[in-house]
Amino acid sequence: MSKVTLEQIVSLCKRRGFVFQASEIYGGLAGFWDYGPLGVELANKIKAEWWKSVVTDKDNIYGIDGAIIQNPKLWEASGHVTGFTDPLVDCTNCGARHRADHLVDSDSTDLTELKKLLEGKTCPTCGKMTLTEPRTYNMMMKTWVGPIEDDSSVSYLRPETAGSIFINYENVRETMRAKLPFGIAQVGKAFRNEISPRDFIFRVRELEQMEMQYFINPDDQDKTYQDWREFAWKFLIERIGIKEDSLVWNEHAEDERAHYASKAHDIYFKYPFGAKELWGTHNRTDFDLSNHSKASKKDLSYFDEQSKSRFTPFVIESSVGLGRMFLAVLADAYNEEEVNGETRVVLKLKPELAPYRFAISPLLKNKPELVSKAREVQAELKKVYGNVIWDDNGNIGKRYRRQDEIGTPYCVTVDFQTLDDDTVTIRDRDTTEQKRVKISQLGDI
Amino acid sequence: MSKVTLEQIVSLCKRRGFVFQASEIYGGLAGFWDYGPLGVELANKIKAEWWKSVVTDKDNIYGIDGAIIQNPKLWEASGHVTGFTDPLVDCTNCGARHRADHLVDSDSTDLTELKKLLEGKTCPTCGKMTLTEPRTYNMMMKTWVGPIEDDSSVSYLRPETAGSIFINYENVRETMRAKLPFGIAQVGKAFRNEISPRDFIFRVRELEQMEMQYFINPDDQDKTYQDWREFAWKFLIERIGIKEDSLVWNEHAEDERAHYASKAHDIYFKYPFGAKELWGTHNRTDFDLSNHSKASKKDLSYFDEQSKSRFTPFVIESSVGLGRMFLAVLADAYNEEEVNGETRVVLKLKPELAPYRFAISPLLKNKPELVSKAREVQAELKKVYGNVIWDDNGNIGKRYRRQDEIGTPYCVTVDFQTLDDDTVTIRDRDTTEQKRVKISQLGDI
Repeated sequence: MSKVTLEQIVSLCKRRGFVFQASEIYGGLAGFWDYGPLGVELANKIKAEWWKSVVTDKDNIYGIDGAIIQNPKLWEASGHVTGFTDPLVDCTNCGARHRADHLVDSDSTDLTELKKLLEGKTCPTCGKMTLTEPRTYNMMMKTWVGPIEDDSSVSYLRPETAGSIFINYENVRETMRAKLPFGIAQVGKAFRNEISPRDFIFRVRELEQMEMQYFINPDDQDKTYQDWREFAWKFLIERIGIKEDSLVWNEHAEDERAHYASKAHDIYFKYPFGAKELWGTHNRTDFDLSNHSKASKKDLSYFDEQSKSRFTPFVIESSVGLGRMFLAVLADAYNEEEVNGETRVVLKLKPELAPYRFAISPLLKNKPELVSKAREVQAELKKVYGNVIWDDNGNIGKRYRRQDEIGTPYCVTVDFQTLDDDTVTIRDRDTTEQKRVKISQLGDI
Repeated sequence: MSKVTLEQIVSLCKRRGFVFQASEIYGGLAGFWDYGPLGVELANKIKAEWWKSVVTDKDNIYGIDGAIIQNPKLWEASGHVTGFTDPLVDCTNCGARHRADHLVDSDSTDLTELKKLLEGKTCPTCGKMTLTEPRTYNMMMKTWVGPIEDDSSVSYLRPETAGSIFINYENVRETMRAKLPFGIAQVGKAFRNEISPRDFIFRVRELEQMEMQYFINPDDQDKTYQDWREFAWKFLIERIGIKEDSLVWNEHAEDERAHYASKAHDIYFKYPFGAKELWGTHNRTDFDLSNHSKASKKDLSYFDEQSKSRFTPFVIESSVGLGRMFLAVLADAYNEEEVNGETRVVLKLKPELAPYRFAISPLLKNKPELVSKAREVQAELKKVYGNVIWDDNGNIGKRYRRQDEIGTPYCVTVDFQTLDDDTVTIRDRDTTEQKRVKISQLGDI
């Protein structure tokens, strides 16, 4: 378990511009969050790493970006209109609504079982024993498309990005002349009308997913499933820099699995509020393509030239939430340390993910020759590294603390010696060591 | 006016995986589109260029990524709940609904004027003279947040990204210690319940915007407004490669301006269906911050240390639709040419925007030594350029045609001579010229 508390992370996020409560000036809106200037940089870098690993580095995985709103027939065929539900109880005294499974700390969605577990429970809002029996509640967010608000125009905000992938399977296969195995990947928003959003950006109503669906011959399901489990584990450690002992595998028991999955393994991250799902690998079998084929009356079967056989492809899904990964990265990187008798907060982010790769300071901000030299160094570094922050507030010590807190790996200071010999002081976030290097060597770090 | 027809672009987009109709297998959904494997690469590159120019290259513009769903008070204060409307007429005979202004080809939203213009008009659906008088219709898409569907839980999908920027003005100013002038930029989706979506991805119900709001001292409004007009014009030509004579300025007359703008200049692109709005620069004055300050009872005024005065910042907005830019890029780059007696379709995209920078082919796909050498070359180029496509289908001539059509600037062929001297044939999309170069020189192109 990480030693950082959720409060410490929330406070850092707000204080330094990683994440703000959505509509904060209007009292907020439960389950919605805005990513601030530093948050959007970190999030973009996580997305870019994922896209590079999953799409660009591969030859047989294709990206798409599907609409959030699709024809509602998609969600009828996928089972979401009837099946994407949570168990809910009302309080007849105060009117509050609660997730039944959360009240009894269970993963079950079985109403009979939940009813039993709920016996004797009180409403967490008013404290009275006035809870109704549990019933199911659909979590898709509803809207109307077009000018008439009636049943014929109802549609939904997608509850998962996967749906837009399955209905484009044939379009992608045809246009890319793809042969099995191949994958379709997507980064995009999804919406879930959670009864009780909680744990900061972990359980939210508007989320962003990074998903890849890999279409295969059913004979290859076991091997492919293992490969994608390994991919996820390795990605988190090698590409995102999460510590291995912050992660743990969790296999879904039969009654915990989603309605489409024959097998499901999640990587759990040890969040401050407990070990919880971060990244799922699922064997969705031919559930999706078969259902969409039936409902759309389009043949989605595949003729395999090697085995001369025709079948509906199986799907191995690799699915991770951007917000959950973002929170895992922050929790894993957060440290409070004693340095020279003072406590510092330091985010030990993988340098490639840090919102700013370098901070540049002139030793004194009222010396134009230092300022202009420092601006030159900044411009050079920007060409290579993109985000390079200018920081000339307060003394050097304060600047270091400020950059430590947002994970900037290197602080570069331009002083009078720089004007003579083109060397600068570079200070390392993790070791706090400083050394003098030539400006031309900064790129090699 | 571009000589390419919209049909040619739509056909290319579908045939080669740029854009598919959303939910195509379920009959589609009007106004919604999915970006396919090539489309998402082109769109991502456009977004990256914009982000680099607007955020990364600047020191005083900060990115955010706000939630699509916000507290509805935001849209009350912004005027959208009452003012974000279109004039609508119904047909009492066939039940169709139409945009009144589109039926009479007018930009006016004045109901009295539209009523006059509509006299004697027939319903375009059934041809009868049975249209009602025009009335206003709100274009925001509605949903409910939380488990209870009633007035207290109504919210909206944001009709423009700008709203999430204004309500974060103070958060960004504080956390980034920003002083005027500074900007906040965002790329994200917005939703508009258009009565009659049309012109492919030009007028849609789900769109993606790239917006920047620049907060300034009102004294600087004229100069800043001019600067951002120039920025947009230059960006389109220099960073995106649009031809200058495909663009034209359009200044909004007083009755065409949105309710918040004191001045508005659009860059129009000459689309196949006429010159239409691509990129808007607007002087929003202090309309937004004043209204949000009033409605939220938060002080959003700014104390300027130089002039020792306190004021509500003015906002210069720079706003462009990703889909509209995408369509402009395709229409501008599309060419049909005669080459050696055959017609070819060629997308003369700026090389930096092409979905694939290089295509790599082994001369013969059944010679393992050529294939493995070509894979090596591909891996090397991928390290530098990201997307590099493998293409070993059909003969070389067919491969060139296929790559021309999707805008791949260079095709590289590995043949037997490559095995001897490490040279390859590189063929240029625009000139169709081929030459032999060392593999090590490919990176310099």
